[in-house]
Amino acid sequence: MAVYTDISETELAGFLGDYTLGDLLSYKGIAEGVENSNFLLHTSSGSYILTLYEKRVNPDDLPFFIGLMRHLSERGINCPLPVRRRDGGTIGKLAGRPAAIVTFLEGMWMRRPKVDHCREVGKALAAMHLAGQDFALTRRNALSVEGWRPLWERARERAEEVEQGLASEVETDLAFLEENWPSDLPAGVIHADLFPDNVFFLGRELSGLIDFYFACNDLLAYDVAICLNAWCFEKDNSFNLTKGRALLGGYTAVRPLSRKEAEALPILSRGAALRFMLTRLYDWLNTPAGSLVVKKDPLEYLRRMRFHRGIESPTEYGLELSGAEA
Amino acid sequence: MAVYTDISETELAGFLGDYTLGDLLSYKGIAEGVENSNFLLHTSSGSYILTLYEKRVNPDDLPFFIGLMRHLSERGINCPLPVRRRDGGTIGKLAGRPAAIVTFLEGMWMRRPKVDHCREVGKALAAMHLAGQDFALTRRNALSVEGWRPLWERARERAEEVEQGLASEVETDLAFLEENWPSDLPAGVIHADLFPDNVFFLGRELSGLIDFYFACNDLLAYDVAICLNAWCFEKDNSFNLTKGRALLGGYTAVRPLSRKEAEALPILSRGAALRFMLTRLYDWLNTPAGSLVVKKDPLEYLRRMRFHRGIESPTEYGLELSGAEA
Repeated sequence: MAVYTDISETELAGFLGDYTLGDLLSYKGIAEGVENSNFLLHTSSGSYILTLYEKRVNPDDLPFFIGLMRHLSERGINCPLPVRRRDGGTIGKLAGRPAAIVTFLEGMWMRRPKVDHCREVGKALAAMHLAGQDFALTRRNALSVEGWRPLWERARERAEEVEQGLASEVETDLAFLEENWPSDLPAGVIHADLFPDNVFFLGRELSGLIDFYFACNDLLAYDVAICLNAWCFEKDNSFNLTKGRALLGGYTAVRPLSRKEAEALPILSRGAALRFMLTRLYDWLNTPAGSLVVKKDPLEYLRRMRFHRGIESPTEYGLELSGAEA
Repeated sequence: MAVYTDISETELAGFLGDYTLGDLLSYKGIAEGVENSNFLLHTSSGSYILTLYEKRVNPDDLPFFIGLMRHLSERGINCPLPVRRRDGGTIGKLAGRPAAIVTFLEGMWMRRPKVDHCREVGKALAAMHLAGQDFALTRRNALSVEGWRPLWERARERAEEVEQGLASEVETDLAFLEENWPSDLPAGVIHADLFPDNVFFLGRELSGLIDFYFACNDLLAYDVAICLNAWCFEKDNSFNLTKGRALLGGYTAVRPLSRKEAEALPILSRGAALRFMLTRLYDWLNTPAGSLVVKKDPLEYLRRMRFHRGIESPTEYGLELSGAEA
């Protein structure tokens, strides 16, 4: 939930003068995106999302994010298409902040995803990975394995406030992951945050992937592992094998996993669970009381870390090894 | 800024089954309305606002609010039209809260209203007063003169935290207003909160009046006095006579003020300033620090109270007495 910055009609009308979107009919601040201020615009040519990038987004990363959306959209991926200004650019300035307009995607995100949604998101993730192969820009993943220890060091001191024994559990996992993290797997552009609230459906059809502001270059199978964590666990933190099978089946139908990638799924999933546990833990300890931002429980991801530790074969996630290539 | 309640696609789809609005395409929580949770819906038949009424709205008042919007809309006032369900009703239940759907009005509210906007809002207010004459339901104004002292008693103790001398100033005004408040003026349905954020414009045209959740029965000229306070002062709290002339000229062109109404404008304006000072003062003292709700400064309205005390004739607001009838 956001909208940190309000804008006046005059400012917005001035900004829109650089575009050819027709007449402005309305704009509403919308409660989406924790990091930025988002407005839903109606103009005489349709609906758009205007985003003002607040301080947590590095302006130097914007050409990567905006360029990626345009690249993927032009290759048939259902994602917002950045709108070009008259001068050809896609990043402007409004209310002192970098700002961009993208097309509005109809669709709803699933508060309680079902098996079919998991299959569709698997397919869409694979299609995105393939479409991203020839994207020219790159961005390092600051939240991959080498980023976890610095993050942990900023939370460790108070970690036991959240759950007793958390510190030693994290230390052990962190050491294991740093030691054994794979590096020789296919890499490319990953979404890195493809949670249910970033995937829209219209009926049974996946109508959009949004929020590319964590996208980066990393192991493609790590993105699959993030989705396993985000889509295939129930509210009680139990793993739903049918959902795992659907998500992995959907993915491998579009982009088969190599045997090495398949074998790495347990460690990648364990790492993904730790990554989200750590950012949630940090936010949990550092979000002021009374803030309207919804704190997400780090312990959900501690439960997943424990689950993944017990996995010996990717088939336990529902992967059919016939779907994995040599 | 609100959205206190999230709703799932399944809940919403179930709720929409009672309507004939076509297929749901998207819904976004919007940052409008401090009291309620509002969502902008896109369906195959158009755009709508869904409101969930949170605890500050008394459900018993909803038939008045919703019925008034329908009544006014059917008489040509640009305001949201409550959508009827298949069963003819307009108030349902969603996520455990009373809920209603109204048509979406395109338009922008003016962060910095100009003279022309003041004229248009004057005309629209008068048209609303006329259209409301035959509305069958009534609602008492809990925030009229008899409501101010109880409100003051809940804020008095800490009033001096906000400005030294505030307490004695309020006591004096309150005693004067209670003693001299007029009662023999034309009454009817008033909006009672027609601030710039509740009035939309498309270009120079007023495209909508919204947020009828303070509407009630009271003196019509009191609504004019509220608008004088809300529209005709500058950011530095100076009164802009040209705006006053435009607002009052617009109003009287549609509904002339009687001589008694005209003569009462100074006391009504002074009362309106006190009323908004008091609610702002109460919120100022009682909104938790760190809350995302924007606190509005009560002192802006203290400045207006002082201004109105010095007014001897309604002509000082820009009223042409030829526009006031005997």
